[in-house]
Amino acid sequence: MKINVGLLGMGNIGTGSYQTLEMNRKTIFERTGLDIEITRILERDVDRDRGFFVPKEKFTQNPDDIFSDENIDIVIELIGGIEPATTFMMEALKNGKHVVTANKAAVAANYDMLLETAYENKVMFRYEASVGGGIPVINALTKALSANEFEEIHGIVNGTTNYILSQMTDFGLDYADVLKVAQEKGFAEADPTADVEGIDVANKLAILMAICFGIRLAPMDIPRAGITAISKEDIDIAASMGYKIKLLCSAKKTGNDVECHVKPTFVPFGHPIAAVNNEFNAIFAKGNAVDDLMLYGKGAGPLPTGSAVMGDVIEIATAISKEVAFDLPPVKENKELKYIGEGADERYIKLSVNEDVTLGDVAACLANNGLDIKSCRQLCASDDKKGRAGYVFIINAVSGKALETALEKICKDIDSVKVSSVINIL
Amino acid sequence: MKINVGLLGMGNIGTGSYQTLEMNRKTIFERTGLDIEITRILERDVDRDRGFFVPKEKFTQNPDDIFSDENIDIVIELIGGIEPATTFMMEALKNGKHVVTANKAAVAANYDMLLETAYENKVMFRYEASVGGGIPVINALTKALSANEFEEIHGIVNGTTNYILSQMTDFGLDYADVLKVAQEKGFAEADPTADVEGIDVANKLAILMAICFGIRLAPMDIPRAGITAISKEDIDIAASMGYKIKLLCSAKKTGNDVECHVKPTFVPFGHPIAAVNNEFNAIFAKGNAVDDLMLYGKGAGPLPTGSAVMGDVIEIATAISKEVAFDLPPVKENKELKYIGEGADERYIKLSVNEDVTLGDVAACLANNGLDIKSCRQLCASDDKKGRAGYVFIINAVSGKALETALEKICKDIDSVKVSSVINIL
Repeated sequence: MKINVGLLGMGNIGTGSYQTLEMNRKTIFERTGLDIEITRILERDVDRDRGFFVPKEKFTQNPDDIFSDENIDIVIELIGGIEPATTFMMEALKNGKHVVTANKAAVAANYDMLLETAYENKVMFRYEASVGGGIPVINALTKALSANEFEEIHGIVNGTTNYILSQMTDFGLDYADVLKVAQEKGFAEADPTADVEGIDVANKLAILMAICFGIRLAPMDIPRAGITAISKEDIDIAASMGYKIKLLCSAKKTGNDVECHVKPTFVPFGHPIAAVNNEFNAIFAKGNAVDDLMLYGKGAGPLPTGSAVMGDVIEIATAISKEVAFDLPPVKENKELKYIGEGADERYIKLSVNEDVTLGDVAACLANNGLDIKSCRQLCASDDKKGRAGYVFIINAVSGKALETALEKICKDIDSVKVSSVINIL
Repeated sequence: MKINVGLLGMGNIGTGSYQTLEMNRKTIFERTGLDIEITRILERDVDRDRGFFVPKEKFTQNPDDIFSDENIDIVIELIGGIEPATTFMMEALKNGKHVVTANKAAVAANYDMLLETAYENKVMFRYEASVGGGIPVINALTKALSANEFEEIHGIVNGTTNYILSQMTDFGLDYADVLKVAQEKGFAEADPTADVEGIDVANKLAILMAICFGIRLAPMDIPRAGITAISKEDIDIAASMGYKIKLLCSAKKTGNDVECHVKPTFVPFGHPIAAVNNEFNAIFAKGNAVDDLMLYGKGAGPLPTGSAVMGDVIEIATAISKEVAFDLPPVKENKELKYIGEGADERYIKLSVNEDVTLGDVAACLANNGLDIKSCRQLCASDDKKGRAGYVFIINAVSGKALETALEKICKDIDSVKVSSVINIL
């Protein structure tokens, strides 16, 4: 059976998706009996060297050439960004095209609208590549694990920040130096804000929250910290206590309360997430039947992302061949569960102080402000072992808000105290 | 929509599957609109305390009560073993029932027959739980990753042996001592043969070979070694060289040649599989688009396995509700690829020798017999640092057959040489 596909955007991911299909078209045909072809491509840059031949007549600069083409069954959206991508996807769905996207920002921003429009128009909408690149996490969570209630999700879902933290950890480098090298190597954007400030991760967490807990969140409302404030010293202290620092998206259900956040986090060496380094991504989930589960792989890159995109295309094409290419009614928002913002976690706190403030002074002040100290130690100034450079505290589980209030008061109570780091502990 | 399910066998896994469904029935209904119920159970042991209430009238001792029950749509087979499980599954399929199983032995032995019978009878056959317990590996490989050609698969797919090797590694214990404790704790069977000799793993590898490469193998024909010969000393030597010893199933495609084997294997510390410990399982795959991917989770246990079983049931029930509960023609055997038995791998070899045989003597003999030494070192007798207890060699990639022939000749060439260990290196 012949299935024609329209492609919106042929940058890196579009090129990788096209290449994945061309490379494995014969195998896909043998496995499924489906002859899938990308027949039209919306892209201005026709002449770019993509490393393989793409017939020029496939290219168009008019999206309507794709939406109104009756021979096209499936539209792949790989433009990125919320607009015009969302408008294009809506247009495609309303024209009876199935839609596949890798666009986390658009999916996070318009989750219900996209799923409902697909349902209303009796077509399918798939977005596997929007979280974790090539890792089949959306498929696993929505299908194979659908007999579970989820209790926890923790993910490393941004390769740029994981690369930076891994390099800082492995080679004792500073954030700024690693970022520079990452930019030179093309692992980080010229403007790295969306990655290093955790915005990209928040988009992905919003999608995971919808899938796992039926909770809808605007990504910008998710409690979030990036990695720009993580110092070499934090990483060394973490290591000395048996932790790696990772930028995690985390969500946890306790009773009917669900908390979530995007934060740099101390991950114990023994936890499988601690072994996920450099450009790799991983999603760790705990289900009430399956227990601990982790999916690990390449979270970005043209071919890994192409693998996820074309996996979705094959699913839809198979459904077309069975004459059931429509989605069931989307799962509604879960009104029983309550989103509570950032929940209580153990925290690592590093405070700088004047020479004359003792650990006892500070510990007493923390206790007076409701912080329950699990362990603490003095940090020595590097050149003078007697100099008190500061103190490190591990605080038993405390909510983000309570901690913030306490730290403000502590800074008022002891004049010279300055908060140099606050990091969650998994 | 109401979907009735018949259950064959309510031992541990059957109980876990029933419990998974009961525990999450409301959630499953909210997600899918499906009201799934296990209405009949083939099981003699009606009175066993399963920790929750099961109405006695659900039990029967006559399988025909399930096969001929027109209200039953799906049959779950959890009896285990090749027979009578295969006969029961065939009977169910021929009676127009969809079948879900966790039975690796029956699936490995009768893969084509079961898939073809399902196809001919226009029903679905699913076996997610047969490899990796709760880990959705079959779903990932057959669906989400279907745009890939697979290049390599390496799996830890037996929790008992991974537990034993992990405990030997972490606590410096001997095989026999750990096995005894594992048996007492219920982590190993009274007769552990199928686990420790790699037979269980070979069944699972036969299924993975069919899925990933379209190659059909009888599990007993797969080159295989168990873990009974692994010594504490091997584990220590491995650690000193930066490796953990894991019982792996491995398959690799080179051109059109595909090799596979089940063998204890040195896994480099940095490889994600090295961090998979105790009862956990993991399947590592390399696809030509997705690149490296690993799925990690609980490979056994009533609830994790129940998660996979009920995931399959929900998939089928969803298809029933869409009126497309039939399988596409099964993927045929791949005649282009050639199975070549065990391929070439780096190897670790430990030889014991008489006091007067030098490393130079043995190294020369290995070289004369075609073995390409990558590194070697002397092992000291524990009480006498001058005593030559033996030698350890790392040999560059060599096939299993070539190695065996060479080692036989070496033992003839140097009288006192005895082979104490041969272990693959990943």
